[in-house]
Amino acid sequence: MVDDTSQTINLSAPVLEKLEAGSRPFSILIQKLAGIVGKTGILYNADELLVYECDGYIVDKSAPDIVVFPTTTEQVSATVKLCNEFNVPFLARGAGTSLSGGCLPIGGGVMIVLTRMKQILELNLRDRYAIVEPGMVNLHLTNALKGTGYHYAPDPSSQGSCTIGGNIATNSGGPHTLKYGVTTNHVLGLEAVLPDGTIVELGGPTAEVPGYDLHGVYVGNEGTFGICTKAIVRLTRDPEAHRTMLAVFQTIGDATRAISEIIAEGIIPSALEMMDHGIIQAVEEAFHFGFPLDAGAVLLIEVDGLEVALDAEVSKILEICNKNNVREIQRADTPEERMLIWKSRKQAFGAIGRLSPSYCTQDGVVPRTRLPEILEFIEQTSEKYGLRIVNVFHAGDGNVHPILLFDERDQGQIQLVLEASEEILEKCLELGGSVTGEHGIGVEKINFMSRIFNETDLATMEKVRNIFNPRQICSRDKVLPQHTSENSPKVVQAHPARRAPH
Amino acid sequence: MVDDTSQTINLSAPVLEKLEAGSRPFSILIQKLAGIVGKTGILYNADELLVYECDGYIVDKSAPDIVVFPTTTEQVSATVKLCNEFNVPFLARGAGTSLSGGCLPIGGGVMIVLTRMKQILELNLRDRYAIVEPGMVNLHLTNALKGTGYHYAPDPSSQGSCTIGGNIATNSGGPHTLKYGVTTNHVLGLEAVLPDGTIVELGGPTAEVPGYDLHGVYVGNEGTFGICTKAIVRLTRDPEAHRTMLAVFQTIGDATRAISEIIAEGIIPSALEMMDHGIIQAVEEAFHFGFPLDAGAVLLIEVDGLEVALDAEVSKILEICNKNNVREIQRADTPEERMLIWKSRKQAFGAIGRLSPSYCTQDGVVPRTRLPEILEFIEQTSEKYGLRIVNVFHAGDGNVHPILLFDERDQGQIQLVLEASEEILEKCLELGGSVTGEHGIGVEKINFMSRIFNETDLATMEKVRNIFNPRQICSRDKVLPQHTSENSPKVVQAHPARRAPH
Repeated sequence: MVDDTSQTINLSAPVLEKLEAGSRPFSILIQKLAGIVGKTGILYNADELLVYECDGYIVDKSAPDIVVFPTTTEQVSATVKLCNEFNVPFLARGAGTSLSGGCLPIGGGVMIVLTRMKQILELNLRDRYAIVEPGMVNLHLTNALKGTGYHYAPDPSSQGSCTIGGNIATNSGGPHTLKYGVTTNHVLGLEAVLPDGTIVELGGPTAEVPGYDLHGVYVGNEGTFGICTKAIVRLTRDPEAHRTMLAVFQTIGDATRAISEIIAEGIIPSALEMMDHGIIQAVEEAFHFGFPLDAGAVLLIEVDGLEVALDAEVSKILEICNKNNVREIQRADTPEERMLIWKSRKQAFGAIGRLSPSYCTQDGVVPRTRLPEILEFIEQTSEKYGLRIVNVFHAGDGNVHPILLFDERDQGQIQLVLEASEEILEKCLELGGSVTGEHGIGVEKINFMSRIFNETDLATMEKVRNIFNPRQICSRDKVLPQHTSENSPKVVQAHPARRAPH
Repeated sequence: MVDDTSQTINLSAPVLEKLEAGSRPFSILIQKLAGIVGKTGILYNADELLVYECDGYIVDKSAPDIVVFPTTTEQVSATVKLCNEFNVPFLARGAGTSLSGGCLPIGGGVMIVLTRMKQILELNLRDRYAIVEPGMVNLHLTNALKGTGYHYAPDPSSQGSCTIGGNIATNSGGPHTLKYGVTTNHVLGLEAVLPDGTIVELGGPTAEVPGYDLHGVYVGNEGTFGICTKAIVRLTRDPEAHRTMLAVFQTIGDATRAISEIIAEGIIPSALEMMDHGIIQAVEEAFHFGFPLDAGAVLLIEVDGLEVALDAEVSKILEICNKNNVREIQRADTPEERMLIWKSRKQAFGAIGRLSPSYCTQDGVVPRTRLPEILEFIEQTSEKYGLRIVNVFHAGDGNVHPILLFDERDQGQIQLVLEASEEILEKCLELGGSVTGEHGIGVEKINFMSRIFNETDLATMEKVRNIFNPRQICSRDKVLPQHTSENSPKVVQAHPARRAPH
């Protein structure tokens, strides 16, 4: 415990400024936080805070005033209670891979970074669950399970860096969502620190828990219901075998028809990913996989299950691809070849990094059968705004990810990206889809909420949020348009919210 | 519309009594309700109301004061608004198959029976969903889909009579839950009339909807969040083929070990049902399937999927059964033989009807590996109370259904059934399980809630309920212990609640 940090902690200029101007004794908050997490568990110098001023949604920025790194649930709870006492907004952050500004600290305040809480607390293979801390990197759990015959099924593209806590906050999907479902299908229960600091347990390792489905509604709350500090996640048996194929099509239309027919046939591939012409060129430039540069679309198709069943499924898939004018099909015959095929998909984002200083990965959903229309619209939008847009996405569930290339140093380009994104998302709605498949609303899409939902819907959601987060002090300005309320805290306006204009 | 029913509706003696004694003008309520649902859509004579005084949980009874049969969402909404205006409690009922008193009208009031809202409003095979009214019988949906290649997966044992609305209220399971999940996994969205009469739409046919998972938390609310008036349900592709087996074991222990090993092998049977010695005898007496009367347990095992994969799975299952001292195995080679095997399971309840005038089907969960312990405990409890108890249940997910045989005309026996049930459920908790797998809390298990959850948990659940149902006027005394609140309506105490003493 640090009793008097005025001697040991050098206050930074911005914090000192606030001390002068503000109504809140910031130095005492820092001192008390250091008392909770230790001196090595806190940052408050402006240059150090810069790292935390944005997440994967780089078009909007807002730095926190203080960052803490708790190592226990009790530290999280004590931090949250202190923020309440000081009436300072706070929010959690895992790896900061959110693509919708989910961990953008609007209005500043305290950021609670969970990356030091990354242990597996229990592995129970017999009953098929693991209890993990929220800062555990998604892939690290699956790596820890290697050799046991089990894995953790949700696998976002960022699984090498994103955390389980962040996955729970956004109800993340991934390439294997089509067959295995999204995060909520794999969370059996959780421990959370509510926005007032209370520690609660929701759900549990037994699949069926009586009463209302509180852990179900908790998943996907985008940080607005408090901070998940432990997760009980379902483990999935490794499939006995895989068959992985890359199918090269001349046109998006052919590829889309093949997808619809594969699914209509009753086959649920474990993954069905599409890369369009633009991304094929980018991946090819970067990694030389040997894709034909004039191809319209490449499908990565994977089926898994019992060895004995797979060849029949592959035959049907090949037949359907042939019927839809496939140009060529590569099949992985060894685990190494499978990894190489997956590398072309998983490294697509790396390839984009070579094309452009910045990119914005959008997230929309359309009914599977409307994929050609939305892709054509994206191409028109690209031309209209003079922005290069490439596409790599989960075609099986109609979840498109147009990637808009730009230079974030140019404010004009940021504006174009925001406008083009909005037009594409509007079109998704028009085609009967949705403005987010898996990235969440965050701060990015908050203004879409009132276009998707009516007032009763939004009021009900607000009431649900207010159960957990009545003061709206936790993860402010996320998911729902903010309503001014007598309960809202007077926030520390260190960094006035620079909100996306859409 | 009935403008003046004082002439046309003969008020029954109890209603007239209430008119004299009570503060509420009951005749006007009846008149106005008849104005909404028509004269053929309302019941209020005591002898007609008797039919609605209990559901499948026959040990507790309480008749409604009025029963209405709306045919549209607007009628449900108008009825609910009227109940609010008159401050009269109300609740929905489907087929009344609840085994936990889920549609018991505690304190009387208006019962809204949804059996006349039973249409399929939309069948969309391409996007794999159906929109149905809540009073549709579960099996009728699957029957309507025959020949399309799709079905509705959740199949409670009562699927021939229970309704989709009731399934949503209780988040029903069934024999195929093990592989296909419970009702919440198959509900994409719904329309509901909230307890104040507002009509809302939650979720929708697109799998991913932004914002909080309101339709997720709605499923399993046991009627306390209002009345579901439309459901958008996922359709499941029929499996290409089945293999169905009946395995006869000498002991429960052998059967249980076989179950654990089948699942540990990575096989997820589409059904894994167990019948114990007692139920084998009952079924055999009634239907003469040819089960050996001295067998300790019979397992019904079904696997489904692609034709080409099934023989390998069956071989593994047979190997595991043999290793665990199986006495004999019957295999269904034709659809007719399959139906016969299923008949032995689905008609088990009919067989029990021949043994005893009444029975109480309990519902508890234990970890799969603790099945022998709970079954031994059930046998001891049977001896202790001098009650015959037989078991037929979903062994694959550890969901036991001890069936306690008794005579409901004997109050002493009812008391023994309640005490024995409580002891068995206590034991389920002690073994790390739960007091309900699929029947819900209803009125039956409401006093268990405070033993399972702490005060914070219950307070959070109460807050969630209060969002939807702030006046607690809708489906009173269900799920959560009632808290006296200034908002509670002054109920019409026609039938003082006779609550189970546990």
